[in-house]
Amino acid sequence: MRIKDEYKQDAIIEATIKLVNEIGFAATSVSKIAKEANVSPATLYVYYKNKEDLLVSTYINIKRNIVKALLQDFDNTLPVRDIMRKIWFNMFAFNLKNPQYFHFKEQFANSPFADLVNDEELEKEFQPIMNVIKRGIEQKIIKDVDFDIIAAFTFYPIVSLSNPKICRNLTLDDETIEQAFSLAWDAIKF
Amino acid sequence: MRIKDEYKQDAIIEATIKLVNEIGFAATSVSKIAKEANVSPATLYVYYKNKEDLLVSTYINIKRNIVKALLQDFDNTLPVRDIMRKIWFNMFAFNLKNPQYFHFKEQFANSPFADLVNDEELEKEFQPIMNVIKRGIEQKIIKDVDFDIIAAFTFYPIVSLSNPKICRNLTLDDETIEQAFSLAWDAIKF
Repeated sequence: MRIKDEYKQDAIIEATIKLVNEIGFAATSVSKIAKEANVSPATLYVYYKNKEDLLVSTYINIKRNIVKALLQDFDNTLPVRDIMRKIWFNMFAFNLKNPQYFHFKEQFANSPFADLVNDEELEKEFQPIMNVIKRGIEQKIIKDVDFDIIAAFTFYPIVSLSNPKICRNLTLDDETIEQAFSLAWDAIKF
Repeated sequence: MRIKDEYKQDAIIEATIKLVNEIGFAATSVSKIAKEANVSPATLYVYYKNKEDLLVSTYINIKRNIVKALLQDFDNTLPVRDIMRKIWFNMFAFNLKNPQYFHFKEQFANSPFADLVNDEELEKEFQPIMNVIKRGIEQKIIKDVDFDIIAAFTFYPIVSLSNPKICRNLTLDDETIEQAFSLAWDAIKF
């Protein structure tokens, strides 16, 4: 059973995401977040030092949820292509199910607040995925290029394809997601 | 010779970019921008209705500069791959030369202000590039998939590769840009 405090923290995080997405970082204040989350500002300050702390915590919370979603049904014994395809579909499923998280994350990552995050800690959680790519390179299945270049063709296209502001006329269904994966695979395969 | 007003407008745009990148949309005010641009707030209001108008105008200004940069030395008689490669290198050259524009654009495109932009007008300027892709598809040089999918593998990887916050350990030089282009081309080629 979850304790009451966790519900409150979740409510504060969800309120932060909702307000930032609707009115932006500029207009979002601690008092507005507290009101939206139905807690007192004093309660909010028990968990978070200030607005910056709350925004950073919200971002880290979302990133952890993304890693969890990406690694769902992760099976290291499968061929590299099958693992990469599974991660690809998992990422789309997460973005389509949680557009508000996706939208907050994109806003945050491109804001000056992003400088406040210690990404190294978070990046460790992506290690299983990096290990698959490493294995693919060693087995001459994946091109031997920098990890950042591989990521630019396997994770970044998802950011644009999941963004309805960028892809206004694209219907995201299993067929188009599969089709797009074949481009990602053609890009990185040896 | 340029008239004095244009210098003022340029100074206002540059000041907006500088301040938004340094302190974010939240803290950037019309009075701070006017001070940074060395004009009076009254002068600023001659050109721009309010902060939103100024932010949108700055974004559109940057987008127009990007299109101009992308289409530099555009030669429609060359093979499709050569044209795409030229656009690829032009985009990196622009981002590396103008990191402040690139950074503002990314922040803006992911903010609620993005909803204020009429993108259709801007997209028309990308028509020559879309025509090359269309020709590539017709000649069975490029895969016959939605334009948004092609763009996700030819323009979006550049957004991540040009972002030093995402690619912290990647050295962007002619060799890595060429290497990354070969992945982009493998992704989209028929």
